[in-house]
Amino acid sequence: MKYELYYWPSIQGRGEFIRLALEEAGADYVDVARRPNGMKAMQAQMKRNAIFACPFLRAGTIVVAQTALILHFLGPRIGLAPKNEKTQLWLLQQQLTISDWLVEVHDTHHPVGSGLYYEDQKAEALRRSVDFRENRLPRFLSYFERLERPKGFTSLELSLFQMVEGLRYAFPRAMKALRYPKLAALHDQVAARPRVAAYLASERRIAFNRQGIFRHYPELDSG
Amino acid sequence: MKYELYYWPSIQGRGEFIRLALEEAGADYVDVARRPNGMKAMQAQMKRNAIFACPFLRAGTIVVAQTALILHFLGPRIGLAPKNEKTQLWLLQQQLTISDWLVEVHDTHHPVGSGLYYEDQKAEALRRSVDFRENRLPRFLSYFERLERPKGFTSLELSLFQMVEGLRYAFPRAMKALRYPKLAALHDQVAARPRVAAYLASERRIAFNRQGIFRHYPELDSG
Repeated sequence: MKYELYYWPSIQGRGEFIRLALEEAGADYVDVARRPNGMKAMQAQMKRNAIFACPFLRAGTIVVAQTALILHFLGPRIGLAPKNEKTQLWLLQQQLTISDWLVEVHDTHHPVGSGLYYEDQKAEALRRSVDFRENRLPRFLSYFERLERPKGFTSLELSLFQMVEGLRYAFPRAMKALRYPKLAALHDQVAARPRVAAYLASERRIAFNRQGIFRHYPELDSG
Repeated sequence: MKYELYYWPSIQGRGEFIRLALEEAGADYVDVARRPNGMKAMQAQMKRNAIFACPFLRAGTIVVAQTALILHFLGPRIGLAPKNEKTQLWLLQQQLTISDWLVEVHDTHHPVGSGLYYEDQKAEALRRSVDFRENRLPRFLSYFERLERPKGFTSLELSLFQMVEGLRYAFPRAMKALRYPKLAALHDQVAARPRVAAYLASERRIAFNRQGIFRHYPELDSG
């Protein structure tokens, strides 16, 4: 099966969770919006399939949106989920909590409106980041640190790698002050997997930047 | 099957989407936290099952969290989803967009931190509400207004009823200024369904209040 991923071409963002899964699985996929006229193709597909927001995935006649749901759909098809349906639903539940976490990461720099510049909501961002670093970040980290995961490698491990990687980029000081040894070890194990390592070293991996969800503004990481 | 719903006992919140589904289906369920010692029982279950946040549902040995996933799980079991798996996934995708929408409703009054009082983030709430009313609310409403839903009555219709009901309570002025005739008609059809009508008139339906997700603060609805 050839997969078509549709997502913003210049950021990791939510699409990165799908890219990591497709790369780890060695799946045959196209990152459509990064090809010539790709944004036009993405807009056409969004209209045709009534998609509220990207990322979305096309697999033959099936079109799926919502990051966690795309991973739930892909998992059994590309060998990144167990066969057991109960475990698949459990994985989706965890992935949805990661989606919630990611919204909160985004809102540290965009607490007023996603259509406004960071500079126009900096005062609010400073306050929200304090709350995030002091309350929400430890809460999510300790939840996943303690969570017992079923045997086998799934997209959940890839997603937790990406959360740790992104949070260390965005909040290096806050992350250094927190203890999450199991997640840190998992992060390193995932990064060392041959296909993940090759992907991270390739041009296909977009660098973190100030258009994405994980953004490093030193002022949001201290004080 | 007897279902146990676990959610905060004094608000509609996210739990209301599950309550509406169980009520419409005439399912045998207990709203655990609203019974004597219910909060204690809820806390014990959260610990035992590693639940990040309520609502969650217990059905025999299965425990499911995340509102949209609970509805996806319940749908085929209580006659609120079609048999077709592709349609079930599509419904879940829509429900996840409703979950995203609901976070944005919540953040109009809590843009800085969910652990802080509204009064301590009122300045930020005023700004965020303007963005919500002018950009996000019309975007979500027009998406669901235009969305072609498959035949048959599902939890999606119940959830859209609840969104319209809650938004009219929280933002009466903004909602009056917007056009959404199909959703308005759907709202009325759902409210008139015998079981829904009986539920809404009963003591089981908690009134909207200033602890819930939909809150009416006149200052957030104008200016």
